[in-house]
Order: sequence, then C-alpha cells, then structure tokens
Amino acid sequence: MSIMGWILGRRLANQEQSQRKIGVFEGVPAMGLDGLGSSAYGPEAALTILIPLGAAGLGYIGPIMGAIVGLLAVLYLSYRQTIAAYPGNGGAYIVSRENLGRNASLLAAAALMVDYVLNVAVGISAGVGALVSALPSLHAYTLWICLGILLLVTVVNLRGTLDAGRLFALPTYLFVASFLAILAIGVSKTLASGGQPVPAIPPPPLQQPSETASLLLLMHAFASGCTAMTGVEAVSNGMTAFKDPPVRHGRRTLAAICLTLGLLLGGIAFLSARYRIGAMDQEKDGYQSVLSQLAHAVVGDGVFYYVAIGSLLCVLALSANTSFVDFPRLCRMVAEDGYLPKPFAMVGRRLVFSIGILYLASSTGLLLVVFGGITDRLIPLFAIGAFLTFTLSQTGMVMHWVRALRTSKDTSRTGNQMHLAINAFGGIVTALALIVIVVAKFREGAWITVIVIPVVILLLRLVRRYYDQLEASLREPGKVDLSSTEPPVVLVVTQQWNRMADKALSFAFHLSEDVIAVHVARLSGEESDEERAIRGRWSQDVEAPARAAGLRPPRLLLLNADYRLMYEALLKEIKALRGEFDGRTIAVLLPEVVPPNWWQYMLHTQRARRLHAKLLEFGGSDIVIISMPWYIEEPKI
Amino acid sequence: MSIMGWILGRRLANQEQSQRKIGVFEGVPAMGLDGLGSSAYGPEAALTILIPLGAAGLGYIGPIMGAIVGLLAVLYLSYRQTIAAYPGNGGAYIVSRENLGRNASLLAAAALMVDYVLNVAVGISAGVGALVSALPSLHAYTLWICLGILLLVTVVNLRGTLDAGRLFALPTYLFVASFLAILAIGVSKTLASGGQPVPAIPPPPLQQPSETASLLLLMHAFASGCTAMTGVEAVSNGMTAFKDPPVRHGRRTLAAICLTLGLLLGGIAFLSARYRIGAMDQEKDGYQSVLSQLAHAVVGDGVFYYVAIGSLLCVLALSANTSFVDFPRLCRMVAEDGYLPKPFAMVGRRLVFSIGILYLASSTGLLLVVFGGITDRLIPLFAIGAFLTFTLSQTGMVMHWVRALRTSKDTSRTGNQMHLAINAFGGIVTALALIVIVVAKFREGAWITVIVIPVVILLLRLVRRYYDQLEASLREPGKVDLSSTEPPVVLVVTQQWNRMADKALSFAFHLSEDVIAVHVARLSGEESDEERAIRGRWSQDVEAPARAAGLRPPRLLLLNADYRLMYEALLKEIKALRGEFDGRTIAVLLPEVVPPNWWQYMLHTQRARRLHAKLLEFGGSDIVIISMPWYIEEPKI
Repeated sequence: MSIMGWILGRRLANQEQSQRKIGVFEGVPAMGLDGLGSSAYGPEAALTILIPLGAAGLGYIGPIMGAIVGLLAVLYLSYRQTIAAYPGNGGAYIVSRENLGRNASLLAAAALMVDYVLNVAVGISAGVGALVSALPSLHAYTLWICLGILLLVTVVNLRGTLDAGRLFALPTYLFVASFLAILAIGVSKTLASGGQPVPAIPPPPLQQPSETASLLLLMHAFASGCTAMTGVEAVSNGMTAFKDPPVRHGRRTLAAICLTLGLLLGGIAFLSARYRIGAMDQEKDGYQSVLSQLAHAVVGDGVFYYVAIGSLLCVLALSANTSFVDFPRLCRMVAEDGYLPKPFAMVGRRLVFSIGILYLASSTGLLLVVFGGITDRLIPLFAIGAFLTFTLSQTGMVMHWVRALRTSKDTSRTGNQMHLAINAFGGIVTALALIVIVVAKFREGAWITVIVIPVVILLLRLVRRYYDQLEASLREPGKVDLSSTEPPVVLVVTQQWNRMADKALSFAFHLSEDVIAVHVARLSGEESDEERAIRGRWSQDVEAPARAAGLRPPRLLLLNADYRLMYEALLKEIKALRGEFDGRTIAVLLPEVVPPNWWQYMLHTQRARRLHAKLLEFGGSDIVIISMPWYIEEPKI
Repeated sequence: MSIMGWILGRRLANQEQSQRKIGVFEGVPAMGLDGLGSSAYGPEAALTILIPLGAAGLGYIGPIMGAIVGLLAVLYLSYRQTIAAYPGNGGAYIVSRENLGRNASLLAAAALMVDYVLNVAVGISAGVGALVSALPSLHAYTLWICLGILLLVTVVNLRGTLDAGRLFALPTYLFVASFLAILAIGVSKTLASGGQPVPAIPPPPLQQPSETASLLLLMHAFASGCTAMTGVEAVSNGMTAFKDPPVRHGRRTLAAICLTLGLLLGGIAFLSARYRIGAMDQEKDGYQSVLSQLAHAVVGDGVFYYVAIGSLLCVLALSANTSFVDFPRLCRMVAEDGYLPKPFAMVGRRLVFSIGILYLASSTGLLLVVFGGITDRLIPLFAIGAFLTFTLSQTGMVMHWVRALRTSKDTSRTGNQMHLAINAFGGIVTALALIVIVVAKFREGAWITVIVIPVVILLLRLVRRYYDQLEASLREPGKVDLSSTEPPVVLVVTQQWNRMADKALSFAFHLSEDVIAVHVARLSGEESDEERAIRGRWSQDVEAPARAAGLRPPRLLLLNADYRLMYEALLKEIKALRGEFDGRTIAVLLPEVVPPNWWQYMLHTQRARRLHAKLLEFGGSDIVIISMPWYIEEPKI
C-alpha cells in the first residue's frame, strides 16, 4: 500500500458514500467539540469582566448565564425547525439564499467562513495555551504543538468525517461524563450543606471590589459570555454528513449538544457562585481557570481531577474539528454557486472536499505561525460572526414561514404560526445580542470584522464575475460546424535528429500535407551539434522519402533564440505562418521523453512541458498543441 | 520592470557573453575569497594543535608554515602551467578526464563537488561564528544570519560572476590592504626592536606545556595548517569566466591570490612567533582568534583594528562565493558528459548556470539548517577533498607531459621536461600531504569522505546509465517512414456541452473521420446536469450536421469513474479502442480554458492538465494528446 494509502486510507468509491455517513454517536464529537468546548471559556469570559466587582460579581453570574442558557434554548428550537425545513443543509448560507437573496447569503457565507477559520486557530491555541500553563516545560514548544494538533485534525478529516467522529469520541464523552459528574457532585454537596458547601481545595480569595456594577459592564459580561454559544449552528451546516434520515440524526445531535452545553453552563454558573469562584488574571503567576478551580473545589486533587482537566484540554484543542467538518461543506455549496473556485466542490479520495480541508489547514496554519501560536487577540472577533449568522438564519426562517403561511392550508397554519413566532423571537434576541456584542467589543477588535467581512464578500463576487465572463464566452454552442475540413498546418519542434523526431515527423504527415520542422538553435550562443546533424541529414532522410511518397517535402526552419526563450522564437514564427496559411489551424507537435520513474524527470530539461505551457498561454485560439510521448520502455498500468 | 528583473537584472542575450567576462580585478574577489579567507584559519588551525607544547610550540610554527608556503609555491607553478595547457578549463575534472580516464575524472568531480558544498556551509558558518563571537547579542540569530548571507551570495551570483566580482571587491581589497599593512608594520617594529617587539596590547599568556613535540603532533599541525591552501584550485575551475585572453587573466588572478596568500601566511607565522601569540581555546570565555590577537598586538585597539577585523569577517563569510563561481561551471561540464542532469548545463537568464547555483544554495541551506548554522564538525572533511583534487590534477598533468614528450620536437623538449618535473614534484608533495591529512584526521571525520565520495560517484554513474539507455532507444533514425498515412482515431474529451466542446469536435473532424466524444460522468456520484445536457443535444446538434456533411456521425461515450479518477476510465476505454482500431494512433483531444491571469488558474480544476500528465505517463507510444486552448479574450504577446 502506498504512503498516501497508509495515511489517508484507501480511495473510496462513489457508491460507498452511504456507508460514510455519521449518526448521533459520531455527530457529537465531529460537530459538537466547538460548542462543548465553549463551556470552558464562556463562563470564564463573563466572570473575567466581573472581576472588578469582587464578591458582588458572583451575584450577577447567575442571571447572566441564565440569559445565555435561555438564548441557547431559543437557538435550539429555531435550528431544530430550520433543519426540518432544509434537510439538505439548514445553514445560514442556504437559508439566507432561499429567503433573503444573494447579498444576505454572501454576508452569511463570509461571516461563517471567517468564523470557521478563526475557530480553528483560536481553538487550537486556547487548548495548547491551557496545556502549557499546566505543564510549563512545554512552553517553548507552543507553536509546534499547535501545528502538530492542526496536522492531526487535518489528516483525520482528510480521512473523512466518520473517522474524525470515531477518533474524537473518547475525549469528547470523557469530558462530558467527568464534568457532568463533577457538577452533580458539587450540586449535591451544595444542597446537602444547605447552600454553603465546604470546598475540597478552597479557591483563591476573590479580589477586593474596585468598581460597582454598571449597565455597560453587565452588557459587556453578557457579550463575553455569549462566546459560550458559538458552535450551535454547526449541525445545520453539516447536515450532508448524516445518514438517513438526516433530519432525525441532525435533530438528535443538536439536542445532545445543546442539552449538554446548557447543563454545563448552568451548573458552572450555579457552583461558581456557591463555591465563591471567580476568574483570575491570566497574566499573573498561579493562574487557574474557572473550571480547574471548580474541579479542585468539588473533587480535590485526585486522579478524577486530572482525568477531567486532561479531557478538557483535548476538547479545547480539538474544537477545531467542528470547522473541519463544516467549512469544506460550506465552501462546496458556495463553489457550486460560482462564488468560490470550483476545486472546492471536487470530491476527494475519501469522499470529503479535500481542497476545503487543505485550504482551512493552510490558512489557519499561517495564522498560527504569524501569531506564534498565541491568538488571544482574535477571540473577540469570534462571537460576532456567530451571532451575525444566527440572526441571518433566523430572519431567513421568518421569511420562510411568512411565505408558507401565505400558501398554507388551514390545517398547518397554527403550526406555521408557532414556527414563525419561535424564529421571530430567536431573530430579535440574537440581533439584540449581536448589537450588544458589537458595541461592547468594538474597540477590542470587533472593528476588524467590519473590514474583513466586506473584503471577503468582494472576493466572492470577483470569483463569480470571472465565472460569468467565462460562461458568456462558452454559451450557446448550437450545431457543430463542419463546413471547413482543411487540415491544420503542422509544426514539428525537434531538439535532436533521432528516432523521436523521426516518429513525430512521420505522424505529422498523417495529419496534414503542410509540415514544417522547427529547430530552435543557438540556445547557448553557439551552433550546436544537433543543428549541424539535422541540417546534414535533412535532404537525404526527409526530403527524398517525402518526394518519393508523392508528398510536399517539409520545410526545415532553424530559429534563433537570442535570449534562450524558445517560445518567443516559436510564437514569432507562428505569427509569420499565420499570414501564409490564412485561417488554418496551426498544430505544434512536441515530442517528449517520458521517463519511467518520477525522479527521472529531474534528468530532463522539460523543454517540451515548458513550451507547452507557454504556447497554451500565449498561442491564440487558432493553435493546438500535440504532445507525443516517447518511452524508454512501454508504460504499464 | 518585473520583480525578477529588479532582483536579478534584465535577461541577457547570447551575444552579450563577452561583455560579461571578468578580468583580474573581479577575478580575485570572485574566485579568491576562499583562498584568502583561509589565511585566517590555516595558521590558527596549526597553532591550535601546537597548544599543548606551550611556548615551545611557537618554535615549530615557522617551519610548518614554511613547508605550507613552499607547497603553495609548488601548487602555483603547477596550476600556472595547467591553465596554459587547458585554457578552456584546467580543473581537476577535465585534466583527469583527458589524461587519467573516466574513473579518475569522476573521482575528481565527486571530490570537488563535495568540497564546494562544504566550502559554502563551512565558510558562511565560520564567518558568522566569528561575527557573533565579536557581537554576542547576535548569537540567537546565528542561523538566520547564515541564511541571509547565503541568500545574498546566491542572488548576486544569479546576477552573474561579474556582478559578484564587482560587489565583493571592496571587502576583499580592504582585507588584503589592511592585513598586509598590519604585517608590514609588525615586521618593521620587530626589526627595529631587534626581534623583540613590544605589543601595543599584549596577547594573553601562552599555556603551560603539557606535552613535548612528537612527529605525529607535528604532522597533525601540518595537516591542519594545510586548510590554508584550499581554494587554490579555484581559478583553474573557473577559467570560462575570464575575458580574452583567458590564460593571461587566469594566470594573473592565480598569481595575485597565491602571492597575497603566501605573504599573509608567512607574515602571520613570523609575527606569531615574535609577538608570542598562540591559539586559544574556542570553547572558553575571552577567546580571541590569532589574527585578532595579532592586530591588537601590532596596532592596538583603534579604528584600524576594527576596519581590519570587520573586513576579515566579510571575507570569511563571503568565501562561499568561490564555490558559487566554480560549482555551477563544474556541474555544467559533468552534465554535458551525461553524468549529471542536463538542466545543470542550461544557460540561465544572466548567462550563468542558474540550476547549479540554486542547487548549491539549497543543499548548503539544508546543511546550515540541519546543523543550526554551526558546522565546525565539517571542517576536517575539507582539506581532503582539496588535496585529492590537487593530486589528481598533478598526476593528470604528469601524464599530459609524458605524452607531449613522446610526440614533441626537440625544441620544446626541455620546456616540457621542466613542466613534467614541476607537476611530478607537485603531485608527489600533494599526495604525501593528502596521506598525512587522512591519517591525522581520520577519526575527526575524514572517514566520512570515504563514504560520501563513492556514493556521489555511484549517483553520477546512475545518471549516466539512464542517459545511455535513453540514447540507445533514440539512436539511428534513418529515413523518415511515410508508408502509412492513415489518420488517427480522435477522442474528444468533453466536460460540458458548450462552444469549447463544439470547437473541439469540429477540429477533430479536420483530423480524422473516426471521432469519438468521451464524457466521463458521475465524478461526484450522481448523474450530472452536463451529462444530461450532452445526451439531450447529441443527435440534433452533432449527429445530424455530421450526416448532412457526409461524415460518419461521431460516437458518444459516457464513461463512469467510480473512484473519480478520470484517467483510469479513459485509459480503459483506450485499451478497448486499440482492439477496434488496430495499429492506428489514438489522439486524445483535450480542450482547456486558459484564463487571462495566472491567479485565475486557481479558479479551475485543471482537469485537462491533470489528464494530460497522466495520459503522457501511462498512455503508451500509440497515443498523442492534443491540447486546444479556449480564451475568454485572445492573448497578446
């Protein structure tokens, strides 16, 4: 088996598509890692904003996270019905395209694409950041560990979404099980102690209050906490990955992710307040994350603690996987609409869209390298993209139900009215959240989004414009035109006088009576041996047999290339021949040695290939280029 | 002007060759930097071996360097007459090939190639090592500085040897002038003081003796000191760079380099002994090189000291330039003999052999990266290659004169006898030196050479074997065969039913009556729109017009590619067609969109190009591939 086969698995046939689909078990790790992992930083982000309030801040975390969990419930209900309405793909791109038009769908596509790229970079670097703060000896290797994880996730996803879902199931379910257990233990201890649990390891004392609560600060805390909700749209964008019936599997996966996330967020908020756990300054020594303090407080410092924190690190570092599942599928749809390059729609070796995966890997790899593996500053951009797509998706669904109501019969009206109400509520709430986030985070980096998203939309439109121009030039073939049957003029490009040149000349006479042999000479400034050899043998070996066969003897042209650019000399000659053979196609015949092994290509100057490329580029539409292979030994396949 | 034009200069015409040749002024910097730079480490290397002798060691440095300068004189005289005998190229490769046969010449080529690669890596890293020990704050950037200098030397040499000679003239002549001045001042002070000069800054005290002199130790010191002589063969290998008459310019350049080097070596040895300057342990703090101690002792710590040491650092770091001048020229000759890939003989944009330059840059870049910019361990390998080529070159010249004596008239006999004597003496002395070096340095790394050089020779022979096989398959064309004039069977590969496909079909009928349209379908697992469109329009738009024109209507084949490998489906079909059209050439016509700008290639799946490559690789010798460009707008050139 080849190396590629070993790394990526054997090539899959089109018919195997259905066996490569995933169910709920693989769906949660494949698409849910982003959402579940955000339980680690959502509450922490909100608590960080509340630090200046000191102990008083803990009184606000409950309501704030309550609002966020409520929003999560609305999103769950909305996406649940979106998935049913668009079982092929219920993502913001399709929903906007179908209901809000081109511009809205491009806005959704741009926001989603930017978000997915950021998710990979930020997710990996956050996970690795947590890892190296736990094991400081690894600090020097931050970037390399980031790139290693990126490579792992890339390769696994090139093998297919099914492989990714299976491989990442262990850390995902371990994380869910251990943190749900910690929360359950914590809650039962709290209840048993009448609301004043004694921590196994007490969290560090909270900071003295330096501010009092203001509306702006609470809004900021809410906006920061909303990062806990990114990743909820993942299922709707990855619907094509699910096996039949996709709606059922998609809905169950979505339910599993949202329910777990809601429990985690609620439990963390509740226990933080009870155990008096606040966020700590990441820049200072002795920093511990909220979840680490919480685990310490509830279960102490034993094996359980390390299993829980270890699985958390894995989930954070692997949260990039969600992007690897959805980004290529999104790009495929955008490419099929002509707004991204066609290669994004090509099905790869393992029936996934490999170009999208590789593009995502290389662009995020670049981000990681540029930022040295530390991408904290990109985090604020994150929630904006997510909430923008939430809002677009909800608004699109509102339009969908409005239209459905216009045409629907009385029996389904009540149902559709309820659907409309849910999506309208979701749309209003996410739009409000979006405004809060933009206002609260504008200076922290949200302004970058205002620049990046329009630029992406512009690029998408430029791509489409190119395809439109191409389409216009190719349109309306009509009946095939067979009026002229004049054969082409054949130019045979020779390099040496040998059997290959001989075969080429002989074939040229099969195509046309007008054959011209071209030898581009003086490439190194002197008349070459080959030039002399060809000149010497021409009349005897070529002209005489041609006359004997009753054919017009071919011309021999010796061209000069003062600047060693063969194609220039050849194009000049072709220009001259156009005058002579008006309206005829000019066929340039390039015989070429094909070596038996790939590394032997290095032993050739690739003159024919370079000429081929240049002639295609500059030749003009009355040219064709004929490649004739010459083998040392006949190839086998 | 393009970016390439700005970096590398405009493309030069073949006719400009003569204006690109160099004289003595440029020849010394271009080819002499290796030789002159070795004055910095040759005496130091010998003194390092003498450290254990303490002050007594200084008594031996005079005789040892005397022997080395004597050897240098012999080499000068030998190479002087070699250059005259082989004005085209008097390097060891040609001299061995002409006089000692294939095996000796390949040995010389391998030794020279290895030496040139090592010279670049070791030269740059030695220069940068000296720089960072002078400016320790740069230490962290060692590798980057190394790679930066490599890039500089590479780009300058891609511009041409003339540019390199001119650009590097300043540091070279500054170095020569300042150190000759220092030596002159030192010698006059020594004479004025009756042999006991008072140092301006006293050198650190010499180590206490821990050993007494042994023959082995002195041999070792001599062998180490011999590194001072690498680079003397450079002029002979770079003869093609000189302007007319090359022998005169080559000889003068050689004389200038050898004379300067001899003066430097002699002066350094003399003054070291007088000023009581020994080598210091490089590993210890406070290390100063011998030349730095010497400059301090003679001229103190003023501006002059810094100018001298600065120019020395430049010369060391730029000593790689010698390899960049000679390595590509050597590779060109070896490639023309078929032992290296032909691209090494291709003349580049600036009339130098760019492939050789780029190969040298990338292989030494790799060495630098692997060794982290510190290549001390490679130094022992150095002198061996140099003395191996000295010996081969001298031996070859002995054979040359022996043959000349057999055929020469009486008048030239005396001259030739003297030539013979000089080369024979040179050969014996360099062979003895080679043995001393191998014995003394075997354990330090000389054994690596014993492995590397045979491997290189093996590779050279493998390359030649490939060319021989290719040559055998191409040989003896004889008269062109025009017996059969049956046209090819044309397979038109279509992707969509559009004007491009229409043009391709129409052209196919110019070539042959047997036209088959092939559509490879189901690339993404479903029947595509294109497939339906083609099927729908075939009879009306293609078959009917063909019948009306009295032609056989073309077949339409819809192939399946279950694994999305189009070429496999196509090759299978071609195999089937071979049975049907026995002995006919099969022409595969691939229409292809050529976008107006290079970056628009990314917007295409490059299906035609990938098919083209695969068909060439596996098609078989009865296949030709026809590329037909389609332009959105006609190209201009």
